[in-house]
Amino acid sequence: MVRQSAIKTMLLGSALLVMSSQTVLAEKMVTPAPNGIQIPKDYKNWQMIAVSHRTDNQTLRVILGNPIAVKAAKNGNTKPWPDGAILAKIVWKDTDHLLWQAATVPGALIHAEFMMKDSKKFATTEGWGFSRWSGMEQKPYGKDAAFAFECLNCHQPAKANDYVFTRSAQLP
Amino acid sequence: MVRQSAIKTMLLGSALLVMSSQTVLAEKMVTPAPNGIQIPKDYKNWQMIAVSHRTDNQTLRVILGNPIAVKAAKNGNTKPWPDGAILAKIVWKDTDHLLWQAATVPGALIHAEFMMKDSKKFATTEGWGFSRWSGMEQKPYGKDAAFAFECLNCHQPAKANDYVFTRSAQLP
Repeated sequence: MVRQSAIKTMLLGSALLVMSSQTVLAEKMVTPAPNGIQIPKDYKNWQMIAVSHRTDNQTLRVILGNPIAVKAAKNGNTKPWPDGAILAKIVWKDTDHLLWQAATVPGALIHAEFMMKDSKKFATTEGWGFSRWSGMEQKPYGKDAAFAFECLNCHQPAKANDYVFTRSAQLP
Repeated sequence: MVRQSAIKTMLLGSALLVMSSQTVLAEKMVTPAPNGIQIPKDYKNWQMIAVSHRTDNQTLRVILGNPIAVKAAKNGNTKPWPDGAILAKIVWKDTDHLLWQAATVPGALIHAEFMMKDSKKFATTEGWGFSRWSGMEQKPYGKDAAFAFECLNCHQPAKANDYVFTRSAQLP
């Protein structure tokens, strides 16, 4: 019994080691954006700053922030946002709720995109490093590093808000 | 100089003490729901499980989970949800984005509501303890403890999902 138990423990240990290696590998396998930006490792654990809904492309979104961004948002320290702030926008296809006729919920993941503030490093794009990974396969967006100008161009209407469309959702 | 500095330090200390007391007081001042449930202290720090949009009452929502709920959602351990799981739904008035015509974003906070799983404590309402606080003033919803049956009644269409409408949003 003791020997069997020891073997089981060894097998379980090996299995966990393999699983652990695969997890680490999976995290490392997300290809960086064409401008060299890597996907933030822990963005799925970040706090919510806001949500949004778009009727022009039928999407639902959540905007999360890293701790620096969340703190800045809470304190209204966003003109400009501080260096180190990262905003994540996760975008899903707007899909009917099967149990509530007049509700829509996240369907397929469209992409996760990020704005990363470093006023020196990203000076040519107004201090923001842009990146986006499409779908569950997390394919980097853009053919070359110039894709970031496409992002910035789309953010021009929010120039007065340091190029950020998001405003913090009201919380008590 | 030393004396002035000491006085400044004392004044600063007193100011911080007052601020700290006010923060604690503010947290304690949220009136419990009529069924005795207290608002979870740290729900604003919880992770996102999903978002939703309703066209019948023009609202945008985020659904957050405490660590037990987030883990259960990730593992698909939701039929039933485990004891200790708490889901928070924060609901805002759907409001036009001033800088993007075809987008809506959170306007005024309508309410924050919670489902708290304890299969024994809340056996009369299918194991869920319901609570809701309205507006920025966080006014408890319901005249007496029976309000929870109103909540449960509305959740009947989701009976097969342990009375929970929310499904986890897809993430890579």
